[in-house]
Amino acid sequence: MPSLQAFLDKGIRLIDYELMTDPANGKRLVLFGTHAGYAGMIDGLHGLGQRLLALGYNSPLIHMGQAHVYPNLDCVNTKLRHVGDIIADQGLPDAFAPMLFTFTGAGNVTTGARAIFDRLPHENVTVDQLPSIAKDCRNPRYRNRLLALQIGAQDYVERIGGGAYDRAEYREFPERYRSVFAEKIAPHTTMLVNGIYWEPKYPRLLTTADLAAIQRRRDLKTRMLAIADISCDIGGSLEFMSHASTIDSPFFYVDAVNGVEHKDVEKPGVQINSIDNLPTELPFEASRHFGDSLYPYAKELALGNVGGAVLRNAIICQDGALEKRHKHLEADLSKLHGIRVADSRRKSVLLAGAGM
Amino acid sequence: MPSLQAFLDKGIRLIDYELMTDPANGKRLVLFGTHAGYAGMIDGLHGLGQRLLALGYNSPLIHMGQAHVYPNLDCVNTKLRHVGDIIADQGLPDAFAPMLFTFTGAGNVTTGARAIFDRLPHENVTVDQLPSIAKDCRNPRYRNRLLALQIGAQDYVERIGGGAYDRAEYREFPERYRSVFAEKIAPHTTMLVNGIYWEPKYPRLLTTADLAAIQRRRDLKTRMLAIADISCDIGGSLEFMSHASTIDSPFFYVDAVNGVEHKDVEKPGVQINSIDNLPTELPFEASRHFGDSLYPYAKELALGNVGGAVLRNAIICQDGALEKRHKHLEADLSKLHGIRVADSRRKSVLLAGAGM
Repeated sequence: MPSLQAFLDKGIRLIDYELMTDPANGKRLVLFGTHAGYAGMIDGLHGLGQRLLALGYNSPLIHMGQAHVYPNLDCVNTKLRHVGDIIADQGLPDAFAPMLFTFTGAGNVTTGARAIFDRLPHENVTVDQLPSIAKDCRNPRYRNRLLALQIGAQDYVERIGGGAYDRAEYREFPERYRSVFAEKIAPHTTMLVNGIYWEPKYPRLLTTADLAAIQRRRDLKTRMLAIADISCDIGGSLEFMSHASTIDSPFFYVDAVNGVEHKDVEKPGVQINSIDNLPTELPFEASRHFGDSLYPYAKELALGNVGGAVLRNAIICQDGALEKRHKHLEADLSKLHGIRVADSRRKSVLLAGAGM
Repeated sequence: MPSLQAFLDKGIRLIDYELMTDPANGKRLVLFGTHAGYAGMIDGLHGLGQRLLALGYNSPLIHMGQAHVYPNLDCVNTKLRHVGDIIADQGLPDAFAPMLFTFTGAGNVTTGARAIFDRLPHENVTVDQLPSIAKDCRNPRYRNRLLALQIGAQDYVERIGGGAYDRAEYREFPERYRSVFAEKIAPHTTMLVNGIYWEPKYPRLLTTADLAAIQRRRDLKTRMLAIADISCDIGGSLEFMSHASTIDSPFFYVDAVNGVEHKDVEKPGVQINSIDNLPTELPFEASRHFGDSLYPYAKELALGNVGGAVLRNAIICQDGALEKRHKHLEADLSKLHGIRVADSRRKSVLLAGAGM
């Protein structure tokens, strides 16, 4: 992707597809969240299978490959059906039962992750059920199905000093709330699939100290094994999540007790996958989706008719100058490189997507 | 698989499908060689991609998963088409061009391996062409295709003291021949796909000393990177091939210079995959093939009508006694466990295949 400076220098019009929104409701029109969810969940299942094997346990999940090795979602879905059959027929390792997948977030990311996960034999549970499930962990029913827990803020935060959760209050005064995820949910969770929207004002889902406390407990050796951090907010809802990972090297491990991060599948730590370009693991579907989303504007883009609300609002710069709403970038640019204004008028349309 | 002793104890008739042969020509009727070839080649491509990445080179092969992650061969073939498109469009890493895949053997194993490999863009070459190809290695044509070299004994052995290769003589007096694989072919080979039939009387394809000599040469750092040893003859045609590998842990590395074997994808050594139950990586196709091969005998098996030539010759034991041609096993069994003869008459048919 050329730098913004290059677009300015050459007088190229730069349109950011992430700024293309529906004028009626302000919602983004070109979204990859669902595809990130697909790939992140596939990679999560793959990683957990690898991790269990390294710990000495064969499991049906070992048959799941990383998302990018599948040529398309049809093949992924066929594979999930086979893996599901093996879960149902041969079962999961007793030592790790019940295998609880906890999902955060309610957007496209989580919808995508669930679309993959839900193809495996599973049972939906609620936070209230967790203590009784833990007591009943030897029940053979947990050998042949995964458990799914979908949580929202009402499940993982509590009002400090008591009182009911109030969504509007939480959003305006999040400092009045604290996270109880470490206390109530993490000790039951095998894999956290994180698709949460987080801002610094909100309490963290899990701090580094929380993770260390869980990892110290001998009775929780089979819990918090892995995190599919599809949100990939560096140092965000998960304090210890310090960087994105890559498709080539998707997993790293955080051992909060010893304060180390490593890449050894056999050593202690929670396995994290935090790939920030997940949709590229499913290029066929992601490209088709991208094409479908952009198609309604393709003619206008090609003709340079960018006066409509959708395209106009997505312009970052044109004719060698930043658009008004992006003028603030000028200070950064001149600080870094110095801006030169050019007026070349090359006629070409480049569709370049960071998510592609 | 129950032990032979158990079959004797319980008076169960044991039929070895590997002994079911066509009475007309003595050829085996139930063969998994082709499926071993498919899976071994897929795993080989997968492993080479991983190895190149560990050496710091991204390549189109990195998109190939291990065979068992694909739900069926259709998905493998679709993936191969995609990988082939990337080879054609984006090319292979210059430093490793030309990438020569050398195939030995002329049976089902090699046929299966070629059925996979041939779906990638490639060019067939002969041993005579190798020196000129090496000189021409910077030719851009080698960036966008793999090279395939199919060799037989006439290519990799030479008559000691001169004279032409004579097939009949080689089979009868193999000691009159020596292998020139290390000299003429290995220094050009990126990956050896070994599907050779070998017996101790034949010269080895490559000795440990041969491998060490190649690994010492600085100009051959990109050669003999990997071996897909589908034949999996322990200490056979490849002297340093000391054990089978497993689907869970498919690759190991032999560093003949330092006389060490390891599992570190980043350390020196030739990558070897020598999985001896390869067809189980493609259970869908292998099972269907197994079923198709056995189907003509299913009714006779179920009814216990085993008087026909095909089934009769495949019986190992029945009625608590070994068949005449397998009597030699008795000595081994009595040495190990002592034989007891039982005469139970349970009526059931168990189809158990080591290759399954």
